[in-house]
Amino acid sequence: MNITWTLIQKQRFQELNASVAQREMCFESQQDRDRVFQEQERILVQQGKLRLKELHDTKKRPSLCVLEQKLVEALTQKGFVQVITPTIISKGSLAKMSVADDHPLFSQVFWLDTKRCLRPMLAPNLYTLWKDLLRLWEKPIRIFEIGTCYRKESKGALHLNEFTMLNLTELGLPEDQRQQRLEELAALVMDTAGITDYQLELTTSVVYGDTLDVVKGIELGSSAMGPHPLDDQWGITDPWVGIGFGLERLLMIKEEAQNVQSMGRSLTYLDSVRLNI
Amino acid sequence: MNITWTLIQKQRFQELNASVAQREMCFESQQDRDRVFQEQERILVQQGKLRLKELHDTKKRPSLCVLEQKLVEALTQKGFVQVITPTIISKGSLAKMSVADDHPLFSQVFWLDTKRCLRPMLAPNLYTLWKDLLRLWEKPIRIFEIGTCYRKESKGALHLNEFTMLNLTELGLPEDQRQQRLEELAALVMDTAGITDYQLELTTSVVYGDTLDVVKGIELGSSAMGPHPLDDQWGITDPWVGIGFGLERLLMIKEEAQNVQSMGRSLTYLDSVRLNI
Repeated sequence: MNITWTLIQKQRFQELNASVAQREMCFESQQDRDRVFQEQERILVQQGKLRLKELHDTKKRPSLCVLEQKLVEALTQKGFVQVITPTIISKGSLAKMSVADDHPLFSQVFWLDTKRCLRPMLAPNLYTLWKDLLRLWEKPIRIFEIGTCYRKESKGALHLNEFTMLNLTELGLPEDQRQQRLEELAALVMDTAGITDYQLELTTSVVYGDTLDVVKGIELGSSAMGPHPLDDQWGITDPWVGIGFGLERLLMIKEEAQNVQSMGRSLTYLDSVRLNI
Repeated sequence: MNITWTLIQKQRFQELNASVAQREMCFESQQDRDRVFQEQERILVQQGKLRLKELHDTKKRPSLCVLEQKLVEALTQKGFVQVITPTIISKGSLAKMSVADDHPLFSQVFWLDTKRCLRPMLAPNLYTLWKDLLRLWEKPIRIFEIGTCYRKESKGALHLNEFTMLNLTELGLPEDQRQQRLEELAALVMDTAGITDYQLELTTSVVYGDTLDVVKGIELGSSAMGPHPLDDQWGITDPWVGIGFGLERLLMIKEEAQNVQSMGRSLTYLDSVRLNI
């Protein structure tokens, strides 16, 4: 019982989002293995076709869109206001996040020209809006954005060049309530995504320094709080909390899928199903 | 009565989305004009603050997001399936749309490197999905996408570097029903956006040749049908119709606003209101 899948079989299983049980099977002989592979592949292809039929007949929207809408509903009900900001941002605004030439994230940025790039995160735009909204609304200012961010990630089962980020922020809350508020907001998002048994872990972010991550096997979200050294650049002095999630990762964990590509914007997958089935 | 607004006053009115009546006022003297300008500017600023208060207290989402959700509901009810595809596309896929070096649209494309660019339209991705879906679903194949497209437009009141496109397509319908179907689909979108009194005009597109435009003062949408010379490149032989709309333009016309920037992704405007009020 020590013969396992070949590399090609493993790849195909990853494409088809095979279950942990399927991926961990062992065999007495190569013949056995290859016979079972054909069986299991056929089952996975059938399941994929069924899911595409369901998308066509009843669901009508990929899970990523459905999750986005659920999050919008949950957050607006809790008093957050949705904003939509440009995906093309200035080099200056990135520099204000301390992401300059010598920063680990800098090499992952897609540049359009010497002055403009695709946003690798939502935070700089939200900082910009905070400054205006402090003049117009009473504190606490609660805003969120859900939108595409871009990073030149080394392609892997956990990374995407373009992914969907949710960033929710609350500016102007009492300093001693920040930790509790972050826990509440993390719980709100995880409930909405249908994920239980996650952990909050103290870790170090390349942008924010010490942060609290939301983890279930992989990093699902990352939070930060202020006053923070970056705030000076944006003229912000009030305490704040912010928490960001990758929506494709939330779906991957919720659906126990094997690759994040299948959950995101794609021409190869539709609603997590490989189209070359 | 032949004194009109100064250039600076006109610009400020455009920022504040002044009404036609406000924009077309004439005066006996410069003194009169400048007094009325101050009054009207104050009123517009008040209206803007009220709209931001409404966004904060009850609406919770910018009109662009609300319109997107209404369109999703209207289209899925009519049997269309939503898809979400990459905003980064290949040079090859653009070339298959006949957008190559000598094409008028080519100079408007944002390039990330020699092989990849930001999509200036949704069509190439929808063509790619059609080919797979023809194997998996029965005809007619009805899909739509709502998402950001990018063009290096000369900045003006009607153009945005990043704008939100809706493209809905139906593949595999009887050839003699195409014209009528396009009219139905245009009506569905215009109804959903709350726009009446639009016209359908025959015109010539740089990509598709002769097309039917949806017009109300400005071009709101543009449609095409196949079989079409481009279809060969994608291996498509069935008849089809497709129609694309700029959502920011739909909002601008619906709300009688003066500039499309105020309706789109922005750091200067929030839900059509200038933030430096």
